[in-house]
Amino acid sequence: MPACSSIRFDHDRAERIGLPEAVFCAGKAPEHLATLFERFACAEEKPILFTRLEASVMQAQSAAVRAAYNYDPLSRTAWNRTRRTRPQGRVAIVSAGTADSAVAHEIARTLEYLGWPFQLFEDCGVAGLWRIQASIDEINRCDVVIVVAGLDAALASVVGGLTDKPLFAVPTSVGYGIAQAGMTALHSMLASCAPGIGVLNIDNGYGAACAASRILERLYPQHGN
Amino acid sequence: MPACSSIRFDHDRAERIGLPEAVFCAGKAPEHLATLFERFACAEEKPILFTRLEASVMQAQSAAVRAAYNYDPLSRTAWNRTRRTRPQGRVAIVSAGTADSAVAHEIARTLEYLGWPFQLFEDCGVAGLWRIQASIDEINRCDVVIVVAGLDAALASVVGGLTDKPLFAVPTSVGYGIAQAGMTALHSMLASCAPGIGVLNIDNGYGAACAASRILERLYPQHGN
Amino acid sequence: MPACSSIRFDHDRAERIGLPEAVFCAGKAPEHLATLFERFACAEEKPILFTRLEASVMQAQSAAVRAAYNYDPLSRTAWNRTRRTRPQGRVAIVSAGTADSAVAHEIARTLEYLGWPFQLFEDCGVAGLWRIQASIDEINRCDVVIVVAGLDAALASVVGGLTDKPLFAVPTSVGYGIAQAGMTALHSMLASCAPGIGVLNIDNGYGAACAASRILERLYPQHGN
Amino acid sequence: MPACSSIRFDHDRAERIGLPEAVFCAGKAPEHLATLFERFACAEEKPILFTRLEASVMQAQSAAVRAAYNYDPLSRTAWNRTRRTRPQGRVAIVSAGTADSAVAHEIARTLEYLGWPFQLFEDCGVAGLWRIQASIDEINRCDVVIVVAGLDAALASVVGGLTDKPLFAVPTSVGYGIAQAGMTALHSMLASCAPGIGVLNIDNGYGAACAASRILERLYPQHGN
Amino acid sequence: MPACSSIRFDHDRAERIGLPEAVFCAGKAPEHLATLFERFACAEEKPILFTRLEASVMQAQSAAVRAAYNYDPLSRTAWNRTRRTRPQGRVAIVSAGTADSAVAHEIARTLEYLGWPFQLFEDCGVAGLWRIQASIDEINRCDVVIVVAGLDAALASVVGGLTDKPLFAVPTSVGYGIAQAGMTALHSMLASCAPGIGVLNIDNGYGAACAASRILERLYPQHGN
Amino acid sequence: MPACSSIRFDHDRAERIGLPEAVFCAGKAPEHLATLFERFACAEEKPILFTRLEASVMQAQSAAVRAAYNYDPLSRTAWNRTRRTRPQGRVAIVSAGTADSAVAHEIARTLEYLGWPFQLFEDCGVAGLWRIQASIDEINRCDVVIVVAGLDAALASVVGGLTDKPLFAVPTSVGYGIAQAGMTALHSMLASCAPGIGVLNIDNGYGAACAASRILERLYPQHGN
Amino acid sequence: MPACSSIRFDHDRAERIGLPEAVFCAGKAPEHLATLFERFACAEEKPILFTRLEASVMQAQSAAVRAAYNYDPLSRTAWNRTRRTRPQGRVAIVSAGTADSAVAHEIARTLEYLGWPFQLFEDCGVAGLWRIQASIDEINRCDVVIVVAGLDAALASVVGGLTDKPLFAVPTSVGYGIAQAGMTALHSMLASCAPGIGVLNIDNGYGAACAASRILERLYPQHGN
Amino acid sequence: MPACSSIRFDHDRAERIGLPEAVFCAGKAPEHLATLFERFACAEEKPILFTRLEASVMQAQSAAVRAAYNYDPLSRTAWNRTRRTRPQGRVAIVSAGTADSAVAHEIARTLEYLGWPFQLFEDCGVAGLWRIQASIDEINRCDVVIVVAGLDAALASVVGGLTDKPLFAVPTSVGYGIAQAGMTALHSMLASCAPGIGVLNIDNGYGAACAASRILERLYPQHGN
Repeated sequence: MPACSSIRFDHDRAERIGLPEAVFCAGKAPEHLATLFERFACAEEKPILFTRLEASVMQAQSAAVRAAYNYDPLSRTAWNRTRRTRPQGRVAIVSAGTADSAVAHEIARTLEYLGWPFQLFEDCGVAGLWRIQASIDEINRCDVVIVVAGLDAALASVVGGLTDKPLFAVPTSVGYGIAQAGMTALHSMLASCAPGIGVLNIDNGYGAACAASRILERLYPQHGN
Repeated sequence: MPACSSIRFDHDRAERIGLPEAVFCAGKAPEHLATLFERFACAEEKPILFTRLEASVMQAQSAAVRAAYNYDPLSRTAWNRTRRTRPQGRVAIVSAGTADSAVAHEIARTLEYLGWPFQLFEDCGVAGLWRIQASIDEINRCDVVIVVAGLDAALASVVGGLTDKPLFAVPTSVGYGIAQAGMTALHSMLASCAPGIGVLNIDNGYGAACAASRILERLYPQHGN
Repeated sequence: MPACSSIRFDHDRAERIGLPEAVFCAGKAPEHLATLFERFACAEEKPILFTRLEASVMQAQSAAVRAAYNYDPLSRTAWNRTRRTRPQGRVAIVSAGTADSAVAHEIARTLEYLGWPFQLFEDCGVAGLWRIQASIDEINRCDVVIVVAGLDAALASVVGGLTDKPLFAVPTSVGYGIAQAGMTALHSMLASCAPGIGVLNIDNGYGAACAASRILERLYPQHGN
Repeated sequence: MPACSSIRFDHDRAERIGLPEAVFCAGKAPEHLATLFERFACAEEKPILFTRLEASVMQAQSAAVRAAYNYDPLSRTAWNRTRRTRPQGRVAIVSAGTADSAVAHEIARTLEYLGWPFQLFEDCGVAGLWRIQASIDEINRCDVVIVVAGLDAALASVVGGLTDKPLFAVPTSVGYGIAQAGMTALHSMLASCAPGIGVLNIDNGYGAACAASRILERLYPQHGN
Repeated sequence: MPACSSIRFDHDRAERIGLPEAVFCAGKAPEHLATLFERFACAEEKPILFTRLEASVMQAQSAAVRAAYNYDPLSRTAWNRTRRTRPQGRVAIVSAGTADSAVAHEIARTLEYLGWPFQLFEDCGVAGLWRIQASIDEINRCDVVIVVAGLDAALASVVGGLTDKPLFAVPTSVGYGIAQAGMTALHSMLASCAPGIGVLNIDNGYGAACAASRILERLYPQHGN
Repeated sequence: MPACSSIRFDHDRAERIGLPEAVFCAGKAPEHLATLFERFACAEEKPILFTRLEASVMQAQSAAVRAAYNYDPLSRTAWNRTRRTRPQGRVAIVSAGTADSAVAHEIARTLEYLGWPFQLFEDCGVAGLWRIQASIDEINRCDVVIVVAGLDAALASVVGGLTDKPLFAVPTSVGYGIAQAGMTALHSMLASCAPGIGVLNIDNGYGAACAASRILERLYPQHGN
Repeated sequence: MPACSSIRFDHDRAERIGLPEAVFCAGKAPEHLATLFERFACAEEKPILFTRLEASVMQAQSAAVRAAYNYDPLSRTAWNRTRRTRPQGRVAIVSAGTADSAVAHEIARTLEYLGWPFQLFEDCGVAGLWRIQASIDEINRCDVVIVVAGLDAALASVVGGLTDKPLFAVPTSVGYGIAQAGMTALHSMLASCAPGIGVLNIDNGYGAACAASRILERLYPQHGN
Repeated sequence: MPACSSIRFDHDRAERIGLPEAVFCAGKAPEHLATLFERFACAEEKPILFTRLEASVMQAQSAAVRAAYNYDPLSRTAWNRTRRTRPQGRVAIVSAGTADSAVAHEIARTLEYLGWPFQLFEDCGVAGLWRIQASIDEINRCDVVIVVAGLDAALASVVGGLTDKPLFAVPTSVGYGIAQAGMTALHSMLASCAPGIGVLNIDNGYGAACAASRILERLYPQHGN
């Protein structure tokens, strides 16, 4: 059998779509990931982001490799270095409950990697409506809003009726029974009566950050990444 | 072939579970319904409620039969007579939008048939949050609250966090695509983070009124129906 | 990255909706739970209920913390203290089989935490109809009835036709194959021909107890919780 | 293009599996059905049963053809002649409500066509438990029991716990919303806790009659059909 | 909290429906099962069958208890004693492949427990049609036929067209992807074009044996079980 | 029964979320729509958009009413007047095939109503890859890109890899069988490997235009709407 | 609003993938189809195939247009002219029942349009196994085999075990209830234990003919189409 | 209980359908597999392929057995010996990303076992369109093309529009949330607008190789296998 062809990186992706390389780690072979860690640990390499990276995998790497990466266990993300940080362009990340933290922080970490400022508004679930109302003015001072919620995801519609900003919604896989691992939250967000919400896959914090970045690049353009 | 056995009415149902006879008309043969209309048009019969009764079916009956019934085309309900009206026991019916009207009125009509007062709060969808907030104090003066909503059904969670009253939720089959004829609203209500909501089948306004009646009978008991 | 905002407790929830704080533990990080256990172990704190709390998590806490909580492994619930016990207001918990025990006891424990008396009627599955018939008179002496059943959940319809009390139904995730982790029981309860049943999410014993409590608070009101 | 090959009848089917030919009419072209009606109208042909045959299709045939068939609009069945009627072998057809009549009668008519006696027990839904209890002794005097029910199909489990006879269950497509055109009744019957129930496709009255006939042929064997 | 009510055995079940007690072990607490094993190990107890009983659970019992039971690891069944073996009444168990063995043997063991003879025909999958054809004559000498198959479950239709005997079909959860843990096999069997097949839940070998037993009790009646 | 409460318009919606009133007509009663047409036909009223408005409904209105509205049958939209047209802010609407035209034009018409320029790129399905490649440079000169596609919706991923602009995707209900009325296209778009795509409900052209407008309002702000 | 861009035909498709243009008519506007009929009626145009074309649409065209097309109502296909007929390359179309005729003939007509010979084997359903056995030798003399079946689609597995030829399977939307408009047949074919079957969308006869043509073009290559 | 009948191998399968024996290992008992390994390790046995064989199972065998097999951990396949290698007949295996490697290599290994040459084109996902474009000419020099992709599986449609070769598509179970373990990729491939793609079950690399082999046997026939 011929040797397995080596991975083909999409090198000009950052130029083409404004988003640098990222590696989704879940389901990838440990040896394959180890090779990537080694390669991108050297100082000359471009920035790269690893998502869905379990702490146990990172801990199995050599000290030199571990030292070369910034790893966060809650969001399960790592990078060798970030893109240049931008002075402008703030994203509001609004989540319903503590169970949504991992996804909210995947968004936060991806934005940090991409160079964009952000602000976290956690525990804003609508069963205690005063919480989102206490934060809405501050949320509306951001450029883009991302809502993170599981279960019935009612927060998306409520925020959608309170902000005129570009708005994305990320369903999370929290809950049990009819929550169906996030499917009910996903369907609920897509069926929202609040107009103009762009919905992402379940738990796809990375994608929501990219969607926000596509907008911020238009609002605050600059040369080179 | 032996003759088809005639319908067996559950005569002591009102005594057993406190709810008088009702006939769900959708899918029943016109001749079968006509026989029932004739029978219950006479003055000695007990009260009976017909639900999901299309106007065209009612219009096809004789003038005498039509005169014997109180028919409402929006809720598609008819009755020969109602149970005795109670002086106490108010139900709040809170709906999200005009598309939910048919179901909201099926609840209202069933309550009227059962003898209970009610109050309608329509167009309270959460995309304009001020609407539910303007009505919540009045809602909280009722004994039981029923939320009616389609699409993402976010209204159920919001009301669930604003009232301490017994609370039921009826999903409606409005919307298109991912609304899935009410399935998304149903799932959303069942997954609500607001505690203690009893959920009914899609468009089941009749059932929600019965659930409220079971509670009101405890709160305001009386002898005979 | 800014520090993760700390949890925002919904402090006035008990006043607003009559139900004190509860924490759903499944999926929450052990450190996060440990912090909560520490905090609510002190005598000045309000009552708090933990649900879906695995024995292994409780056993990993310090002796002082463990001593501060009343933990029940079957229902996987713990509390620091209960609300004041009420002298009146009895809930009938009717379950189909021994496999439904965990959910039936989550209801029982939540009611105990909320201060309401209850009575358990287990093994009442309809394949042996004499069992529910032997208990129905006693069930009908309670104020609210909660049916707990998995598989085809036929018990809900049978009880629905035998009681005039407010009635809730909790599907359980027992069974295999077409039982679909409780989805068939859920659908069956929602489609029940017995009128006026409020249905909860699969295995949601906590929610059913809250629904009963909303009614009991109306029947037996008192000042302060 | 070559001519469409003509229909290949499975002539020795009755000998092979003991069940004579039947034609499922729904979705078949009118001309195709007309050809079959003509052919089997002649006196020499074997018995044949037509199922799901709309009255409008039968009415569009010539008077001679119509006279050659026994057509029943409720069950939507027709035959040219029946198999020889057997003196023994009684089937109990137990249905939940009037909405299940069409399917109950498809079973009855198919049994009549196959030559087997039967007895109809309609309106036995479990929300009024006394109805099935009043009939169970008579049901238990039959050789085979077939339960017909829609919605939550709880009747199947209840009967399954009250009879020791061979038992089949046919879900019906009555109801709305979560009834899902019979899917909930089907799932409920398959998940029944009563042991030894053979389940058929939604609305498949014909199949249930055939299943019963396979048993009756063993109990009351005879030579020739 | 009041003590949990003890299990209510359905003692007269064997008399009522002709099938003695059985315990489905999956999901039951080890202590609960241990209590049952102890109780039914004594010589005076009636016969009892345990299904879905993992070998590890049985091995954890005392030597005395283990000695009191006949345990089979492939079918995961155990009994203290069987019902009296019948001289007549043979069931053909026809399975598609070796992956269906566990279910086929659950049927076999349940029949042995119930006292009925049986014959196993394994590896009869239709992709090698000669296999079922080589066995069909012998199959047709049995009184009842049970087909066990996963994946597309095509074997059910093929056998349904080759036998005139009462016929049941058990879908199995073998396969991957679109096999959907047996759901495709279940749907396929229910949609079979061969008439008169009673279908059981996925992997429900116990239920199929009970369905066969209901028939055999009619064919070969005797007094006492 | 109390009179049905009249519709509560969300008057300050345009100020709150930057999007003026719109009415979804499907499923609304003809009399209700007629009342709205009359009301908004007068010159003093604010701009209003009607979507999912069948030509037959519009034709049933009086000549005066019809003259007051701009109606387009392909997109099934009507308005009394549009918001002020903006000189800047171009949206690329990229669709896969002619079957997607109705949805593509609902986007176009909604943008025209909201005052934003747009450009249509139809018949860009990836089975003929040269079509999207011929248009990509022109597409990339727009500010926001909306992809409209049914079936496998592969166009979304391809465009997502070719543009750095904010990107939304609208699945359409074209196709048959496994296309499942747009569900497969919806799932495909949500699972896209191209990062940062915000997905809308099936056929929700109106929502996609609103999502684009939220961005354009940030890019080209102005006072008053 | 700018004019809607006209349809972009994929002119070099025949050269690129060896399959000439085809138009799927279902859901396309009558005016749009009329324009296409006019255009391709002229003698200089290339061959074009219309599928899912209702007879009523064709009858609404002018006599001149109707005369220019070869229309078949059973398969609902039309063409202006066919590709050059090939002397070699035979496709076996094997269908289960008469209800599958429309799809079987869509395959036949598409093959005729593409220039390939074919042979129809109808009514080969496995409930009468002798039918497929009587035809299998003749089937095996063809180059490619296409199985067409609905319901449980067991025919695909049986044929898959009897032929060594390239094999495709087309599920059909016949049946009711659990047949789920062809979904069960589709799943069953994908789960088939017979190896090497390529499955098409439900009712996609056109696609199956194209799949066969891709193979025949390799087996019997020639220059020009 | 009678002894379990031993496995019935389908010995003449290679002659009947041109594909030698294969064993799907997932879910089979270790002892059962061990017996097979022993048996086919002897030199006289025919070639046999094991698929879905975990490394841990192979490592548990004796050194002699392990030495007798060629095992590949990535594809989880093993064989005792391959069929005779053919000089002609090349298959292009085109995959979207590194996550699809296991399936791509199951295809490659099965082809090697069957004796057919192949060429791997990995990392051709459409989000970087240049990758498939760089390889398409080389792909088109092969006889059969197999596309392997997960998530939205857009690669199938793109390749379908760029090649005139026989084309199969294998969905993979990569991804999370709405990817639904490969179901979205499967649906997407079946709904592809590119004509003539035969689709296989999720992750069914073995089946795709068999489908290709059925074609190659026609293109490059030879006597004996």
